[in-house]
Amino acid sequence: MKVGVCDTTFARVNMGAAAVDELRRHASVAIERYTVPGVKDLPVAAKILIEERGCDIVMALGMPGGKEKDRLCAHEASQGLIQCQLMTNHHIIEVFVHEDEAKDDKELAWLAEQRAREHAENTVKLILRPDALIKEAGTGQRQGFEDAGPARH
Amino acid sequence: MKVGVCDTTFARVNMGAAAVDELRRHASVAIERYTVPGVKDLPVAAKILIEERGCDIVMALGMPGGKEKDRLCAHEASQGLIQCQLMTNHHIIEVFVHEDEAKDDKELAWLAEQRAREHAENTVKLILRPDALIKEAGTGQRQGFEDAGPARH
Amino acid sequence: MKVGVCDTTFARVNMGAAAVDELRRHASVAIERYTVPGVKDLPVAAKILIEERGCDIVMALGMPGGKEKDRLCAHEASQGLIQCQLMTNHHIIEVFVHEDEAKDDKELAWLAEQRAREHAENTVKLILRPDALIKEAGTGQRQGFEDAGPARH
Amino acid sequence: MKVGVCDTTFARVNMGAAAVDELRRHASVAIERYTVPGVKDLPVAAKILIEERGCDIVMALGMPGGKEKDRLCAHEASQGLIQCQLMTNHHIIEVFVHEDEAKDDKELAWLAEQRAREHAENTVKLILRPDALIKEAGTGQRQGFEDAGPARH
Amino acid sequence: MKVGVCDTTFARVNMGAAAVDELRRHASVAIERYTVPGVKDLPVAAKILIEERGCDIVMALGMPGGKEKDRLCAHEASQGLIQCQLMTNHHIIEVFVHEDEAKDDKELAWLAEQRAREHAENTVKLILRPDALIKEAGTGQRQGFEDAGPARH
Repeated sequence: MKVGVCDTTFARVNMGAAAVDELRRHASVAIERYTVPGVKDLPVAAKILIEERGCDIVMALGMPGGKEKDRLCAHEASQGLIQCQLMTNHHIIEVFVHEDEAKDDKELAWLAEQRAREHAENTVKLILRPDALIKEAGTGQRQGFEDAGPARH
Repeated sequence: MKVGVCDTTFARVNMGAAAVDELRRHASVAIERYTVPGVKDLPVAAKILIEERGCDIVMALGMPGGKEKDRLCAHEASQGLIQCQLMTNHHIIEVFVHEDEAKDDKELAWLAEQRAREHAENTVKLILRPDALIKEAGTGQRQGFEDAGPARH
Repeated sequence: MKVGVCDTTFARVNMGAAAVDELRRHASVAIERYTVPGVKDLPVAAKILIEERGCDIVMALGMPGGKEKDRLCAHEASQGLIQCQLMTNHHIIEVFVHEDEAKDDKELAWLAEQRAREHAENTVKLILRPDALIKEAGTGQRQGFEDAGPARH
Repeated sequence: MKVGVCDTTFARVNMGAAAVDELRRHASVAIERYTVPGVKDLPVAAKILIEERGCDIVMALGMPGGKEKDRLCAHEASQGLIQCQLMTNHHIIEVFVHEDEAKDDKELAWLAEQRAREHAENTVKLILRPDALIKEAGTGQRQGFEDAGPARH
Repeated sequence: MKVGVCDTTFARVNMGAAAVDELRRHASVAIERYTVPGVKDLPVAAKILIEERGCDIVMALGMPGGKEKDRLCAHEASQGLIQCQLMTNHHIIEVFVHEDEAKDDKELAWLAEQRAREHAENTVKLILRPDALIKEAGTGQRQGFEDAGPARH
């Protein structure tokens, strides 16, 4: 199995490195790293990773800024990532941390790494242990901050 | 007939299980279950269910959170589900429950199950009894909360 | 000529029936009816009508609710209908009536039927009498409520 | 060279006629006219003009109303026009005048014609004199109201 | 290597010229220039540069106005540029400067040139030195105004 990890120079935390480290803890996989300037460059990077570099699944990591304009960039990037998945029939796990989700730089760094790591686990499950995800269906999982949990206790 | 049922670990109610149960009450169909992390992972899952696992129709179930950012995720997922249908010429019944549609966890659990079940009925009609839907045209049907009914009484 | 008429069980007026009735008044055409649950199911229904059931043109009729969430559904459906047209090189006449366009149920019923009928005329013109539309270019035509008319009197 | 000119019956000014007149002043070109009900019908009309009627370039002219709902229609139409260009590798010059850009009907009529005429010039340049556009790069050109001009005087 | 540089006559600064100048400082590359009226014309121009004029990568430069309507145009253009990249598997570096990012014409001119130049560097790195970008992953790079820097100091 080969996992593509694409991230950005715009992000203020090395989310790609955290993802790579966590992937290696959970599975013996080949990893292809690809860094682009910003989140809007991620969709085509993911497509190249899948179609030209043989990746079975891709993690796309980014950190949009906190302004309205940044939210729109993230929206465009997300649409592109979904479109890319539909064109390739491969999953791309989007790992975006919005700068305004955290109260300060310290929490931002923690959140970005934590979310990257938890989504690395999801990435491995999607490819190698899909039944593990079916068991978690409807349980209110979150990545980074704590789980919401099921509505029925 | 084979029905794909894809849902998420993000949802706080096991909507996929409710859909499967209801589908079995209405028709003798094969069912393929697929669970992904969140709603933005549903479009490609639906495409894989149709193109690689032979499903004739798919139910895509999810529960977006109540924040602005969550609404945007749901919007992106919906666009992807429509695009997927256009690429495959197969119906995907979207069953989304927004967390803020319900006043508390108890109602949320009821609403999510109820909507999943009523859309399971629609799914069976679309494939096996399309004439039943023509008879309901313009009658203000709703899934979950009560029907709006026709404008002319 | 074969006209596809797709509408929804969500709508509170039988817009499809009004469209079919009006189409028959203006031209001798075969009609294929297709009813789906909601507006987001219309794009793929229109595509199936064009590609699998031989329709030359399609009318897609729906009645989005008055809430913000409903407007977003209508937006997604509209994008899908445009995409479908680009994929097939066939026109799809969108006939949407937003529930909040009318002041009460009575006006809503009138508006939905009237708009369906006037767009049925446009549908026939697009296929059989395109020159009739060129003659109306820039004249401020509206469907349902009264025409806006030309800016120069 | 063949230029497609598609416009709408919804517009309150005959923008298509103005475009055709101006195109003829600047170049000896064949012109194909296509009128549709509203702006959301323009993308497929443009595609048909390019793929089935041999147009080298298309002008798509429309006049969205001033309400929020109308702005959304224009947005959907614009997305479709861009998608159409990407599918065909042909330019489509969008000429939209929003009804609320003008203070009264008289200015609206002037603006719609003026913008149509200035974009007709751009259309000819794109096909026949691309170097003329390179010379104008970054000079703050506008169509209709006066140019913004370069930031450095 | 051949780099496409497409820009607009709408912009108030000759961003294309700045990009060309900077590209030449960093690499010995062939350059293909393409100027269009506005940002919504950029996606198809970029596609033509890639598919018909042999460009390996494209810079798409534009300057949307400061009004809501302009922001929507930029959004549509951005979506088209992402879609174009997915259709061609080639990067397009979007360099947009919103007129309201700068406090006056002087700063606007400086910002537009500076951003064009810094993205020209990114363009060269993406094609010739992808490892240089991996080294900058998560370091909070910005183009134009000063870098945000990493969250961990």
